[in-house]
Amino acid sequence: MTTTDYEASARETAEPEPGRASLVVMKFGGTSVSDPERLKAVARRLVTARQAGNRVVAVLSAMGDTTDELIELARRVSPHPKPRAMDMLISVGERISGALAEMALHDLGHEAVSLTGSQAGIVTDTVHGKAKIVDIRPKRIHEALDEGKIVLVAGFQGVSTSFDITTLGRGGSDTTAVALAAALGADVCEIYTDVEGVFTADPRIVPEARKLDLLSFDEMLEMASSGARVIATRAVEVARIHNVTLQVRSTFSDREGTWIREEDESMVERALISGVVHQREETVYRVSGTTPARLFGALADASVNVDTIVQTGDEIVFSAPVEDRDDAEATLAALGVEYTSRDDLGKVSLVGAGMKSHPGVAAKTFATLDSAGIATPLVTTSPIKIACHVASTDVDRAVQALHKAFDLA
Amino acid sequence: MTTTDYEASARETAEPEPGRASLVVMKFGGTSVSDPERLKAVARRLVTARQAGNRVVAVLSAMGDTTDELIELARRVSPHPKPRAMDMLISVGERISGALAEMALHDLGHEAVSLTGSQAGIVTDTVHGKAKIVDIRPKRIHEALDEGKIVLVAGFQGVSTSFDITTLGRGGSDTTAVALAAALGADVCEIYTDVEGVFTADPRIVPEARKLDLLSFDEMLEMASSGARVIATRAVEVARIHNVTLQVRSTFSDREGTWIREEDESMVERALISGVVHQREETVYRVSGTTPARLFGALADASVNVDTIVQTGDEIVFSAPVEDRDDAEATLAALGVEYTSRDDLGKVSLVGAGMKSHPGVAAKTFATLDSAGIATPLVTTSPIKIACHVASTDVDRAVQALHKAFDLA
Repeated sequence: MTTTDYEASARETAEPEPGRASLVVMKFGGTSVSDPERLKAVARRLVTARQAGNRVVAVLSAMGDTTDELIELARRVSPHPKPRAMDMLISVGERISGALAEMALHDLGHEAVSLTGSQAGIVTDTVHGKAKIVDIRPKRIHEALDEGKIVLVAGFQGVSTSFDITTLGRGGSDTTAVALAAALGADVCEIYTDVEGVFTADPRIVPEARKLDLLSFDEMLEMASSGARVIATRAVEVARIHNVTLQVRSTFSDREGTWIREEDESMVERALISGVVHQREETVYRVSGTTPARLFGALADASVNVDTIVQTGDEIVFSAPVEDRDDAEATLAALGVEYTSRDDLGKVSLVGAGMKSHPGVAAKTFATLDSAGIATPLVTTSPIKIACHVASTDVDRAVQALHKAFDLA
Repeated sequence: MTTTDYEASARETAEPEPGRASLVVMKFGGTSVSDPERLKAVARRLVTARQAGNRVVAVLSAMGDTTDELIELARRVSPHPKPRAMDMLISVGERISGALAEMALHDLGHEAVSLTGSQAGIVTDTVHGKAKIVDIRPKRIHEALDEGKIVLVAGFQGVSTSFDITTLGRGGSDTTAVALAAALGADVCEIYTDVEGVFTADPRIVPEARKLDLLSFDEMLEMASSGARVIATRAVEVARIHNVTLQVRSTFSDREGTWIREEDESMVERALISGVVHQREETVYRVSGTTPARLFGALADASVNVDTIVQTGDEIVFSAPVEDRDDAEATLAALGVEYTSRDDLGKVSLVGAGMKSHPGVAAKTFATLDSAGIATPLVTTSPIKIACHVASTDVDRAVQALHKAFDLA
């Protein structure tokens, strides 16, 4: 996402008035509102935040499997549903959540107002199914906050510049929350999820994994794009551009989660490595007979989410999510290039701002994997990340070995 | 419903341009779009209408039980759901239908655009749950029709003058269709349902009942308000005020249905009686110690749909739907009046414009019921209707006896 008009709105409102209550944007995912009881628990949490003196804006996802059920309904009507109609259809899930939360808050004695993306002033481009926010016009939100109301915004959606309902695609509700926080000049954007924050590794694989207290935007970006599923990469990008402080925390506990903010001096003395993240499977393609510009232009047009890119000669190697395989292969076929693909690899990545000044990290990573008998057919690095593709069946062991070797527990 | 601003829109557009294709508004109820297959059948019917050269606007209800399921979900969150939030919630059902129909039409090679009530320009007052349409601003509909598109409008809903989503209450989608037909100057408003038109009696009770070809607005109004469930009373009122010709017909057949239009000379020579309609149960109240103004003012405030009203002395007798009983009794208790109520009565009504000049109809009605041993504890009449309350258990026999006595088969 590039710098957009809503940065202007952010600047207008970013200076807090003296004595003004802090403004918090709270985002709740689908598992946090999956049934009426959980929805009522979310309402109680919003009341607590309001009673603490905050101005509260909540962004809600659709309940549990609602969106998947709507997609299934569409497939029963049409093999390739028309994108404009699909957006009209799947945008209803978040509206249902908002309406129910408004009822629950009313019963708790708090006035709230639920708004569709359109009513909340989320203006997007016209690309249905993966629209980008181009402007936020939060007049109604400001009015409702000034009246002391809790504002509930339907995530994942907006209204296009042609006045049609659009959806934002993967990670849409996270993006709604962060973009709103930027436009409103919120003090913090809290991302509520079903885990207590960002961990040094997935606790299902590494039981001794530890919750991280603080990450920089760059670290979170690397972790999110390398497999940490607590927040969408795209939302972290927006937070980084607009300097929106994030807290990833649990819907089901009161403990502090993981704070994510701009890197400053206080972060210098932190550990070398923040965490080990992984993806269990990715498709890895090896392509020859084309140029990177032609290849990745065509893949972008087909909405393939290309992850790793490596080129060391005539051959271009890239990876992409398994679910994008049909689109990717159709694109490669249309380009008429020679290629091979394999589905048996996953990826393990070490992320940490500290590694920038410690070149020994790469050597230790390879030595650790080598001792464990794990081959790394593809390796890529950034200043704060080392990513190794390994056999899918080796992913768990690789995460465990690296977590131990870098003493992250 | 009183005369409203959208009459002005109607006048602006009512004069057809020379050579302009006719404009038809087609309304489909919940059973007509209850599953993906039926929805696709509705799409094919819209294509047929478009291919015949018409400009087509379709108003869709929610699929099958969708609205009931949403209401049940609300009750699991809140014992008395906040009306504004309830409207936000239950308005999604019609949007789902519209979005799916847009997909189905696209697959049939026809461009369509589904619009929410708000996008279609249905402006209402701010009374949530039973809003009244105050204006229709059909700019987007006209634009889409001019582009040759089929326009799908979500029924039952609008946007209030405070920019909140509202729903129109019982019969809302019928009302949307007729009001749109008025505002657009449509040539006809077709109400598609699961029966072939308006019958001389309910065919489940009288197998030899006959479909009526033509009714006046007044007759349809009396029949709709006396138990014919093919079209909402309120929608007939709007049609009558704005002189919108209606056709009630089946979604599942190509046969002509029942036309409903302004009474003219061609109707004079028709049969005395158009049909016998019934309601299986109604609550009948006998109240003393208050005035009609005070009583019916309070009942209107509580949204009790009062049907029959009779006053012959100090006692006021009125009937209302069984489902309004809680609201009615609460109102009577609050007024502090003495009353009795009974739930064991239904109502049988003869309707026909022809009876205006034939005073013998009432006598024949009472003689027929008397011969059948059916008592009539409450009788009311209008110029074109005789309504008799009878025991609920006598309703079927009364309908059959009257249908036969007046030779309606």
